[in-house]
Amino acid sequence: MARYAFLGPQGTFTEVALEGITSSEDVRIPYANVTATLDAVRNGEVEFALVPIENSVEGVVARTLDELAIGDPLVIVAETTIPVNFALVARENVEITQIATHPHAESQCRKYIAQKYPHAEIIPMPSTAAAAEAVARGEYRAAITSPSAASRYDLLVIEDEVGDAKGAETRFVLVSRPGKIPKRSGYDRTSLVAFIGADHAGALLEVLTEFSVRGVNLTFIQSRPTGAGLGDYHFIIDAEGHVNDERVGEALMGLRRICADVRFLGSYPRADKIAPTTNRNAHDENFAEASEWLNSVRSGKKI
Amino acid sequence: MARYAFLGPQGTFTEVALEGITSSEDVRIPYANVTATLDAVRNGEVEFALVPIENSVEGVVARTLDELAIGDPLVIVAETTIPVNFALVARENVEITQIATHPHAESQCRKYIAQKYPHAEIIPMPSTAAAAEAVARGEYRAAITSPSAASRYDLLVIEDEVGDAKGAETRFVLVSRPGKIPKRSGYDRTSLVAFIGADHAGALLEVLTEFSVRGVNLTFIQSRPTGAGLGDYHFIIDAEGHVNDERVGEALMGLRRICADVRFLGSYPRADKIAPTTNRNAHDENFAEASEWLNSVRSGKKI
Amino acid sequence: MARYAFLGPQGTFTEVALEGITSSEDVRIPYANVTATLDAVRNGEVEFALVPIENSVEGVVARTLDELAIGDPLVIVAETTIPVNFALVARENVEITQIATHPHAESQCRKYIAQKYPHAEIIPMPSTAAAAEAVARGEYRAAITSPSAASRYDLLVIEDEVGDAKGAETRFVLVSRPGKIPKRSGYDRTSLVAFIGADHAGALLEVLTEFSVRGVNLTFIQSRPTGAGLGDYHFIIDAEGHVNDERVGEALMGLRRICADVRFLGSYPRADKIAPTTNRNAHDENFAEASEWLNSVRSGKKI
Amino acid sequence: MARYAFLGPQGTFTEVALEGITSSEDVRIPYANVTATLDAVRNGEVEFALVPIENSVEGVVARTLDELAIGDPLVIVAETTIPVNFALVARENVEITQIATHPHAESQCRKYIAQKYPHAEIIPMPSTAAAAEAVARGEYRAAITSPSAASRYDLLVIEDEVGDAKGAETRFVLVSRPGKIPKRSGYDRTSLVAFIGADHAGALLEVLTEFSVRGVNLTFIQSRPTGAGLGDYHFIIDAEGHVNDERVGEALMGLRRICADVRFLGSYPRADKIAPTTNRNAHDENFAEASEWLNSVRSGKKI
Repeated sequence: MARYAFLGPQGTFTEVALEGITSSEDVRIPYANVTATLDAVRNGEVEFALVPIENSVEGVVARTLDELAIGDPLVIVAETTIPVNFALVARENVEITQIATHPHAESQCRKYIAQKYPHAEIIPMPSTAAAAEAVARGEYRAAITSPSAASRYDLLVIEDEVGDAKGAETRFVLVSRPGKIPKRSGYDRTSLVAFIGADHAGALLEVLTEFSVRGVNLTFIQSRPTGAGLGDYHFIIDAEGHVNDERVGEALMGLRRICADVRFLGSYPRADKIAPTTNRNAHDENFAEASEWLNSVRSGKKI
Repeated sequence: MARYAFLGPQGTFTEVALEGITSSEDVRIPYANVTATLDAVRNGEVEFALVPIENSVEGVVARTLDELAIGDPLVIVAETTIPVNFALVARENVEITQIATHPHAESQCRKYIAQKYPHAEIIPMPSTAAAAEAVARGEYRAAITSPSAASRYDLLVIEDEVGDAKGAETRFVLVSRPGKIPKRSGYDRTSLVAFIGADHAGALLEVLTEFSVRGVNLTFIQSRPTGAGLGDYHFIIDAEGHVNDERVGEALMGLRRICADVRFLGSYPRADKIAPTTNRNAHDENFAEASEWLNSVRSGKKI
Repeated sequence: MARYAFLGPQGTFTEVALEGITSSEDVRIPYANVTATLDAVRNGEVEFALVPIENSVEGVVARTLDELAIGDPLVIVAETTIPVNFALVARENVEITQIATHPHAESQCRKYIAQKYPHAEIIPMPSTAAAAEAVARGEYRAAITSPSAASRYDLLVIEDEVGDAKGAETRFVLVSRPGKIPKRSGYDRTSLVAFIGADHAGALLEVLTEFSVRGVNLTFIQSRPTGAGLGDYHFIIDAEGHVNDERVGEALMGLRRICADVRFLGSYPRADKIAPTTNRNAHDENFAEASEWLNSVRSGKKI
Repeated sequence: MARYAFLGPQGTFTEVALEGITSSEDVRIPYANVTATLDAVRNGEVEFALVPIENSVEGVVARTLDELAIGDPLVIVAETTIPVNFALVARENVEITQIATHPHAESQCRKYIAQKYPHAEIIPMPSTAAAAEAVARGEYRAAITSPSAASRYDLLVIEDEVGDAKGAETRFVLVSRPGKIPKRSGYDRTSLVAFIGADHAGALLEVLTEFSVRGVNLTFIQSRPTGAGLGDYHFIIDAEGHVNDERVGEALMGLRRICADVRFLGSYPRADKIAPTTNRNAHDENFAEASEWLNSVRSGKKI
C-alpha cells in the first residue's frame, strides 16, 4: 500500500494512467495542478506523484519540466504512457451549440469541430474532466473529454476518437523524493537537466557531443529559459540507459565539468521497454577492458 | 494606418507591447487566444498580429510555437520585448483572502505569496487582465496582474513588483502572411523550423553542425513533438543573421537537404539590436571570394 | 603520341605502371628523382609525369607530396596502381652472400632475409632497378628487385614474391601543368592541400567537418610540416568525388574560407573505379533543389 | 653512465642532438639506419636510442614512425630539437663542379644551388655526414653537410646557412624499452598510435573528437598505411599532457574502445617546455569533483 498524488480532478487522463500502474489497495489523491501534485510528495503527504510530461492534452508539460528542473528536488522512478483518445459527450442527444473543453484538447480536435460543428461556441475549461463535470451538472451542452470521464459522469458518447491526430499518446512520470534509484532493467531511460552558463548555440553542441562520444543516444531534448532574462537556458534531456551504466556515468561527469550545473532527474525503465541502441563498443565490459588497459599502461607494463 | 490583432483581452502585456510598436492611427483588435489572433491574419481580417513567444506570463509560448511551426504559414516580420512586472491589486484596502491570477503568473509570484499571504485562496483565471477585470466588478478580493491592467480597471496597487524573479521579460513576435522579407538591418534574427525524420539525438547534432560549420550562432532552440506518436520531433530555431546573408542561406540549404522538411519563419531585426558575432570568415565577402576561387579552379585557371 | 616523364631508372615499378597506361607510340623518359621527373613537366620537356605517391618501395611518397603541395603548381590528371612484387635475383645460382636493394625494399623483405639469408650483407642502392643493374654487371652477388627489372637485365629469379606483406600495392599519379580538368567519370577522386594558420588540433577537426557536413568522404589524409618551424602544417587530402560535384565544390569553398590557403591538386578517375558512397542527400540534384527552395524563400514566395 | 645508440654515421645532426642531452661519461654508438638504431635498444645492446622523428634532413621520419608504430614495442622517454643548418664545404677553395649530399638536404638547398651553382653535378649520398667524409678523402669536390660534420672532417666552410628555409629545426626522440614512465613535468607530451578498422574519414573525425571532448589538444597527427593494402591506416598522434592526467587517461580509454587497437608511445617533457592549454574545466581536480558527484548521485544522496 502506498499513497499517490495525481494531476486531477478525477477522470483526467492522468488518473487513467495511474490506475494502470497501481493496485486496488493503493490510495490515489487528485490535486488541482502540477505544482500542487508534486508538492504533495515534497511535503510528505504522499510517497509518489504522477504527472504528465509530454504531449499531454492537459497542457502542463512546461510546468512539469520547470518543476522538475528548478523546483525543490524530486526524481523520476517510473514512467507510463496511455493513448490519447477524445470523445464528444453530452447528457443526451441534443443540438451541439456549445462545446466545453480544455484549450489544448480543442486545438487537437480543431479540424473535427470545424467540419462537424463550425458554429458551436467553444467554452474553455481548466481540464477535460472539469468540462465533463460541467456538462453533467447541466452547465453546458456538450464536452470534448476522455472516455474515462464520460463514463465517470455517466455521459452519452456522441462520437468517439474525434482527435485530429490518430495514434497520439501522453507520457507520464512517477516521481518521488530523492533516494534509492531503481535497479537496471536493461531498457532504462535517464533524465537530467543541464544548466548552461553563457553562449547558447555552441554550448548545446558541446552538451550533445558529451553523450554521442560515449555512445549514448538521446530520446528527448527541450530547452527552457531558467528565469529572469531571456538568455540563460537549461536543457532537459532524456538519454538511453541507466546512471549505473558506465557510458551514462562518464557522460554525466563530462556534463558536470562543462556545464554551470547538472541535475539528475532519475533512471527508470522505459514504458515501451526498448533497449538502448548503443554503438561504439560502449557497454560496461568495454569500459572495464579499457580501464584495465589504461592501468597497465600507466604502470609501465603494457603499451 | 494598419490593422493589428493582439492576444487579448485588453490590458494584457501583449497590448502593452503592441502599443510600443504602433502609432495612434493604427487599429488594435484583441482576440481570445493565440490561435484566434493568428487566424485573424490568415483570413485577412488584419495585416499583422502580435503574440507572445517566449517566457510569457500568459502561458502561450507552446501554442505560438506550434501555430507557427505547423499551422497555416505565417512569417515573423518584427519582434519586441517588454519587462514583466506583476502588481498585487484590489478595489480598495481589504484583507487579501483571495488572489485571482493566471496560473503562470501565480507560479512566478509563488515565493511572494507564500511569504505575505500564505492562506490566500488562489483563483486561477484565463489571463491576468481577466483577473483584474473580475476584481474590478467585485467578483474576487484581489488580483495579481500587470500595472497596465490595474490602471485600465482603475484598481488600487497594493504592492508593485511582486514577481519572484527580477528582470524577467517577455518576447513578442509580429507576424504577417508570407510576402516581402524585411531588409537587412545588421542585427537580424532568422527563425525557422527543422522537421526531422527518424532518429532524434544524432539528427539534432547534425542540424546544429549545419549552422556552426557556416559560422552561424543560434539564440534559441526548442524541440516540439510534431503530433501523433511521441517520437517525431521538430526543432524551432532562432539563428543570428538574415536569410539574405550568405552563411545563413547556405546553412538553410544544408538543413533543407538533411531534414525531412524545413519551414522558414522570417528574418527580422532583433529587439536588442545585437549584431551577429560570427567568426570563421563567414561574411558575405568571404563567401564571394571563395565562390570566385572555385570558379577559377573549375575552369582550370587556378589551383 | 605524348611525352611522359617517369621516376627512373629503367626497370622501376614506376616504369611498369607507366607502360600500363600508355601506348607504344608514346615516349617514356626516365628521370633521376621525383623532383626532376616533375620538373620535366614544369619546364615543358614532357606533357605528363608519373610518380609514386603512396606506399611505394621507392620511398618517395613524402617527396611527391611535398612537390605537389608546395612546389610550382601541377595537377593530377590520372592515377594507377600496381601490385608490389619483389624477387630475389642473381646472374646464376650462386651462394647469396650479398643482397643489393633499395632500403625501403629491404625493410619490406626483412623477415624473408632474416629467415633465409641471415648472414647476407645488405648493400643499399638508390633504387631496386639500380640494384638489378649492379648485379647484372657483376658488382654484387644478388639483388631484391622487381620482376620487370629482372627480366630487363636478363637475371635469374632465385625466388619470387619474397615481400613480407602479401597484397601490397603502390599508387602512382600522372600529373600535368594546370589546365583542363578531366571530365566526371562517376568514380572520381579529388586531391587538395589545406594550409592551416595556427592551432593544429582544432583546425584539423574543422577541416574534416567541412567535408563531413556536405557528405563528402575522405580516402587519404596526411599532415606535413610546411617548412621552417615545426608548428605550421598542411594537410594533403584525397576526397571522394569531382570538383564539379556540388558537394565537393561547397566543401572546397568552406575550406577556402577557414584555411590560410587551399591548393587544388586535381579531380581524376580512381584506379579502383569505386564510386563515392555519399549519404546525407548530397547529390547534385539535392543541391539544386535546395538552391531553388532558398531562392523562393528569399523572394518571399515560399516558407 | 648509460649507453646510447644514435642514427649515424658520426657527424650527423642526430649526434649533435645527442651530445646536447648526454654527459661526457655516457657512451654514444652510431648505427647505420633508424631500424638498426632502435634494434640496439630492443636487443639490449644499449639502454637508449636517439632518432629523428620530424622534418629531419636525414629523411628518416617515416621509418621512425613506422618502427615505433608497428615494430617491436618501444617507448619515448624524452625529446630534443636542434636547428637545421646546412653548410657548403670543400677541402679548399676550388671550383664547385660537384656537390655531394643527401637528397633531402639537396631539396632543402635547391634554390641556393640553382642560383649559385646551377651547373654543379649533384652526387646523392646516404647521409650528409657521408658526403662530408667523401669530400674529405678527395672523392668529390664539395658537399652540403652540417657544420658539425665540416668541423669533424676538418673541411673548409665555403658558405654557411645555405638552406632555403631559415629557422628549420629537427625533432628527435629518445626511446627505451617499455617500463617506468617519466614523472609529470607540467609540460608533457603523450605520443600514441590509433589503429583504425575500416572507414577512414569518419573514423579520424571520431578519434579527434575523443580528444577534444576531454579538452586535450593535439600537436601532431600523421596517417600512415599499416601495410598490405592501401586502405588500412593508423594515426600517429602527439597530444598535450601526460598519461597520468585524468583527461588524457580518459581520452585514451575512449580511443581504446572505438579503435581496432591503440599503442601507447610514451609521455615525456616537451623540449619547448610549453604547458598544455586545456580549456573545458579539464584539470585533474575537475575530474575528481565530477567523479565524487557521480558517486553521490548513484548512491541516491544527491541529484
